[in-house]
Amino acid sequence: MAGRNSLYIPGPTNVPQRIRNAFAIEQQDMRAVDFPEFTQPLFEDLKKIFKTEEGRVFVFPASGTGGWEAAITNMLSEGDQVLMSHYGQFSWLWVQMCKRFGLNVIEEEVDWGDGVPLKRYAEILEADKGKKIQGVFVTHSETATGVKSDVAAVRKILDELDHPALLFVDAVSSLASMDFRMDEWGVDACVSGSQKGFMLPAGLGIVGISQKGLEAERRSTLHRSFFSFEDMIASNDTGYFPYTPNTLYLKGLRESVDMLLEEGLENVYARHRRLANAVREAVKAWGLSLVAKHEDLYSDTVSAIRVPEGFDGNEVVRHCYKHYDLSLSVSLGKIAGKAFRIGHLGDLNELMVLTPLIGAEMAMKDLGMDIELGSGVAAAQEYLRQK
Amino acid sequence: MAGRNSLYIPGPTNVPQRIRNAFAIEQQDMRAVDFPEFTQPLFEDLKKIFKTEEGRVFVFPASGTGGWEAAITNMLSEGDQVLMSHYGQFSWLWVQMCKRFGLNVIEEEVDWGDGVPLKRYAEILEADKGKKIQGVFVTHSETATGVKSDVAAVRKILDELDHPALLFVDAVSSLASMDFRMDEWGVDACVSGSQKGFMLPAGLGIVGISQKGLEAERRSTLHRSFFSFEDMIASNDTGYFPYTPNTLYLKGLRESVDMLLEEGLENVYARHRRLANAVREAVKAWGLSLVAKHEDLYSDTVSAIRVPEGFDGNEVVRHCYKHYDLSLSVSLGKIAGKAFRIGHLGDLNELMVLTPLIGAEMAMKDLGMDIELGSGVAAAQEYLRQK
Amino acid sequence: MAGRNSLYIPGPTNVPQRIRNAFAIEQQDMRAVDFPEFTQPLFEDLKKIFKTEEGRVFVFPASGTGGWEAAITNMLSEGDQVLMSHYGQFSWLWVQMCKRFGLNVIEEEVDWGDGVPLKRYAEILEADKGKKIQGVFVTHSETATGVKSDVAAVRKILDELDHPALLFVDAVSSLASMDFRMDEWGVDACVSGSQKGFMLPAGLGIVGISQKGLEAERRSTLHRSFFSFEDMIASNDTGYFPYTPNTLYLKGLRESVDMLLEEGLENVYARHRRLANAVREAVKAWGLSLVAKHEDLYSDTVSAIRVPEGFDGNEVVRHCYKHYDLSLSVSLGKIAGKAFRIGHLGDLNELMVLTPLIGAEMAMKDLGMDIELGSGVAAAQEYLRQK
Amino acid sequence: MAGRNSLYIPGPTNVPQRIRNAFAIEQQDMRAVDFPEFTQPLFEDLKKIFKTEEGRVFVFPASGTGGWEAAITNMLSEGDQVLMSHYGQFSWLWVQMCKRFGLNVIEEEVDWGDGVPLKRYAEILEADKGKKIQGVFVTHSETATGVKSDVAAVRKILDELDHPALLFVDAVSSLASMDFRMDEWGVDACVSGSQKGFMLPAGLGIVGISQKGLEAERRSTLHRSFFSFEDMIASNDTGYFPYTPNTLYLKGLRESVDMLLEEGLENVYARHRRLANAVREAVKAWGLSLVAKHEDLYSDTVSAIRVPEGFDGNEVVRHCYKHYDLSLSVSLGKIAGKAFRIGHLGDLNELMVLTPLIGAEMAMKDLGMDIELGSGVAAAQEYLRQK
Repeated sequence: MAGRNSLYIPGPTNVPQRIRNAFAIEQQDMRAVDFPEFTQPLFEDLKKIFKTEEGRVFVFPASGTGGWEAAITNMLSEGDQVLMSHYGQFSWLWVQMCKRFGLNVIEEEVDWGDGVPLKRYAEILEADKGKKIQGVFVTHSETATGVKSDVAAVRKILDELDHPALLFVDAVSSLASMDFRMDEWGVDACVSGSQKGFMLPAGLGIVGISQKGLEAERRSTLHRSFFSFEDMIASNDTGYFPYTPNTLYLKGLRESVDMLLEEGLENVYARHRRLANAVREAVKAWGLSLVAKHEDLYSDTVSAIRVPEGFDGNEVVRHCYKHYDLSLSVSLGKIAGKAFRIGHLGDLNELMVLTPLIGAEMAMKDLGMDIELGSGVAAAQEYLRQK
Repeated sequence: MAGRNSLYIPGPTNVPQRIRNAFAIEQQDMRAVDFPEFTQPLFEDLKKIFKTEEGRVFVFPASGTGGWEAAITNMLSEGDQVLMSHYGQFSWLWVQMCKRFGLNVIEEEVDWGDGVPLKRYAEILEADKGKKIQGVFVTHSETATGVKSDVAAVRKILDELDHPALLFVDAVSSLASMDFRMDEWGVDACVSGSQKGFMLPAGLGIVGISQKGLEAERRSTLHRSFFSFEDMIASNDTGYFPYTPNTLYLKGLRESVDMLLEEGLENVYARHRRLANAVREAVKAWGLSLVAKHEDLYSDTVSAIRVPEGFDGNEVVRHCYKHYDLSLSVSLGKIAGKAFRIGHLGDLNELMVLTPLIGAEMAMKDLGMDIELGSGVAAAQEYLRQK
Repeated sequence: MAGRNSLYIPGPTNVPQRIRNAFAIEQQDMRAVDFPEFTQPLFEDLKKIFKTEEGRVFVFPASGTGGWEAAITNMLSEGDQVLMSHYGQFSWLWVQMCKRFGLNVIEEEVDWGDGVPLKRYAEILEADKGKKIQGVFVTHSETATGVKSDVAAVRKILDELDHPALLFVDAVSSLASMDFRMDEWGVDACVSGSQKGFMLPAGLGIVGISQKGLEAERRSTLHRSFFSFEDMIASNDTGYFPYTPNTLYLKGLRESVDMLLEEGLENVYARHRRLANAVREAVKAWGLSLVAKHEDLYSDTVSAIRVPEGFDGNEVVRHCYKHYDLSLSVSLGKIAGKAFRIGHLGDLNELMVLTPLIGAEMAMKDLGMDIELGSGVAAAQEYLRQK
Repeated sequence: MAGRNSLYIPGPTNVPQRIRNAFAIEQQDMRAVDFPEFTQPLFEDLKKIFKTEEGRVFVFPASGTGGWEAAITNMLSEGDQVLMSHYGQFSWLWVQMCKRFGLNVIEEEVDWGDGVPLKRYAEILEADKGKKIQGVFVTHSETATGVKSDVAAVRKILDELDHPALLFVDAVSSLASMDFRMDEWGVDACVSGSQKGFMLPAGLGIVGISQKGLEAERRSTLHRSFFSFEDMIASNDTGYFPYTPNTLYLKGLRESVDMLLEEGLENVYARHRRLANAVREAVKAWGLSLVAKHEDLYSDTVSAIRVPEGFDGNEVVRHCYKHYDLSLSVSLGKIAGKAFRIGHLGDLNELMVLTPLIGAEMAMKDLGMDIELGSGVAAAQEYLRQK
């Protein structure tokens, strides 16, 4: 098949040439005397991406899922009470993981399309007079539904109640793409991965932990070794790793961080916002709606687009892949078939973000939906064009 | 600037990953004992791309322009009478080159937008009772205007008059993209380059020469060394080159030829035709016209699109580049400013060919033209979609 | 600094161009409908590398250390008695990990330079009349000392005693380089990583598990999620992964497995043996000795070379790196400073394996050791040359 | 075959990763408005490599051979008398080229192993009272014999005689590796290529021309088009090229020039000298001699090593390639079979330059020569080691 696949899933994202070049290196000795000259500035600069000065960032050769596990096993103990909510496939999976590790989960089920249930969280935390709840969990951008949750508001609830619970945030599909402020929001564990805003392939779990989070490790009794913060700290402090790191991806991560800081985080956020708005203009023009229930809940990295009754969103995805070499993402779990997803994050510009709109439009029309060709594209063009 | 440049000029074209990988090799010894095992099948397979069995193909580390020079200096002599026409920047430049080498050019000026003047060629050749004209020149696809000329018809004229002139064809922007038949059309010199249908970067002049053309070398008195067919034949016959070849590009050319033969030349032509039709549907929907005067003249690799009176096509190009990171091509020479050009050749698929249409649409609107956003895209989508 | 670093550590090894090219791809959707067409043959072919027909192979985006953890947490339970021995840094680290997970370790300390203590293992297992020992551990090639242990002999002991303990083997620095037979030797868990014989960068833990090992998962009560075999099986059986896999490395692994199978595993082993012998000839010619105590213990992937009294092996490593851009490996733990290590595994040929010998020779001489320049190289050349 | 080919021919040389990365780019529009921002600083910095302030440098998508032709056809006219000498294959080929272009060559035949015949040049130029000789030619480093000629001395002869002839120098295998001073030595045409000191693959002819050389173009009557300085100047002055340039290699050339200037040209020369000395120490230790007759004639980029009577140097080359995956170069022309050549230029360091010595030693021994294994290597090690 001629030409290139158009990849618009919410991660892995397109890897920019600069990062691909950073990969095209000879292997290196991760125990070389000058290796710390490479790692230590990287650890420092990573903190800027998380917007933390007091915390620290761990890089595991793993994935976001591994990052979840690292946060749990280092900071909590079997039987600990934690407050979680699920409003999509990934927040639900994190709940399952916590249960596996023997945590006592207070589990709030939320409509897919809504975000973290602030009111319920406030009620439950207020009711927790004994401050037994050890951790409160939020999925910042729920990748399955394209819903953004209000992390700052959760912090506000905790602060107002003077509740000491640790704040765990899944920022896998938001960090380095959407406004995220680890210190300001008092996030104790921020879990991310390499294959989203960092524009790398999948293969790293990147985790920011606050001082309070690091102190929690001393009390935690869950077993851990591969994901041990303590081991990581002992080695990272000297510029090394407790076991062979993924040096290739570390080189890519260096380039990624450089690119993000060169563009400026605020500009990166604004760009994602602008491109996401264009996608949303197209959806409106198509006469469709997002899974996310209202504007405040719109994620800027992924949009889950509802298809009309009688149509299968996942068929749109299969059709795009088969006929137009376009990779979109299927809808999962509770909304399986009811929507399709477009990832619009990472190294993107205007013409690139219009590409999946063209293909989706054609596919929807092909499948018999009442879509006018060019309509969504035109709305997005109008939004994006230089006036 | 985030994201990737969208490159839609009529060469260099996008280099597919397979070819980029073929480049990512260690250097090799071009005098190694097993080098002929690589070169000789390549020389053979190149002939398939030219559709010649009796001719041979030379690969110079040069460019299409170098290929022009190779054809002239090996096959003609100072003072030789040649019949040429110019209907665009590149056919005009070839005339200039012939004059530099002291050829006696019968020069037919043609409207830019028309192709080779068959009637005039027939008249002139018929009038040449002494058969003094040594060469007849055709630019198959005039890259400056997006005009295709009828090579087979020129051959027919020559045959009907039993005229022995050599037939020189510039197929730089047609070979490996549009129907081309060297043996069947009796082409004696077919000049091409690496950066168009071969999907490589610029850096090779690739020239197919018929047996009659090779015999002409014995009579030619123009000086030549770098471009000498004789030297090339002596070395190529043993699998080597008379001077250091561009082994990197030869590896890429091997991959390119494999890709073309795997897809099948007829499929490659059909794909280019189909994608070009989509572009033309957009132009029609915009209410604009091509520089090429009528359908039979449409090149399938490049379209020169006229802008309305009062607008500057080259401003469209600059605007696309500056605001949308989209590279289109300016109009040159006689039509400078009156049009802009979109290259739609090489490793392209449906979504890729729609990309420049989106950008051009936005730019034209930005610049005040009466263009409805989405209109051209929709027409092209309709043409391309699976029904 | 001009020129290329010469990397001769026991992993990461030099990544061959074919694998580097496999990396130079656009990202892909790991949920695409045709992704299983890629993964399922890969899972099958990986089994050939482990020489298992009845077992299965898991690929974690992790490291060999992660592979250790996967084997332990899926197949054992807190309090389980396991028989382990340590005779180098890596076998020692595995013991530490088992303790962390609450295993009851019968810990045999062995001289660094010896391998698995067969006699002691036999005594202890024979004394275990109640068959309480759940797991027996062997590090096949101890990377810290260059010592190979006899896995088949441990299996023989278990069989003769009809002992049902699971056999765990660390084959990180032996698999795909040295003779390894998972089924024949009755290995229940074979842990490997990407950055040694597989010739990839670090970033994958690759683990082969026997049917008996898979059945053990049902009884195991240790917490696991990221490393869960059950989750992996459920997804792998459909050609997918329970969380985002490292698709880049999977592509590289595909190429790696192809390269290994094309060369033929027996040829790969023979090549490593031959190149290792050349290194050992050099060591002999230098008048030095290996840490490995006798010939049967020599690993074919890494040699730890003792330096004379009064010299620091790690200074040799630092000197090579600083002055000759040569990366060798330091000695660790109990033998720190007493030796230096040369990795001679992966994509190597004769001239490549001679390179670290040249540099080590120069460095040892520079540092005042009584080494004749050229002596080790000559011995290795004599061994390797075509006679 | 496992492992990497060891490439030690006098060009193409090993392409460093930095340059390979510069190649791994998307194609670009060579007519983009910002293209001059890339080309113009490159043209300026190239002058530093040639050590010219008043001249200019042309970059042709061709080869060193193309560069020869460019120099001749732009600066001389048919029938012009030129003084040339040949002392190796490449100086001989340049003579042949000049004859093809109708130059009247005063041809001095010199023993292969000697350099430019200063005394004969002085006599002939002194005898040329009418100053009819238009050009004097020197091959700075004769790649076929490893002989360096004294360009400054030729300039001195011309100056002392106040002879106005243009000075043409082939610096293909010396520029960017050995001391070269275009302005100081009054070189009017300095021809180079991409695949030697510039560390790129073959594919560019890079030519430095003095003001006097540029003025000569006005008088020259040889036909030229592809290689026309005039056309090149007209376009280069605006930051563009008269026809599609090899933008890929231009990107690589940018990186190459950066690397050379970062290391410092004097350091580059010193490194080549030091590594060449090491090779020469090995040759001495083997009891062999160079083709170059005495020390002043030794080229620092390539050594042609004589084999003893009764042996075939080219068999050494074939044997190295077949058995050790080592690419050396055969001897050509008058010395065919009497020697083999090692290229030691470009991106090399100590261990890299020792590699061909190991292989050559093994091959010579294999073929029955009286060579002690390790002897040449030891001598080179001793020379190179840090004392």
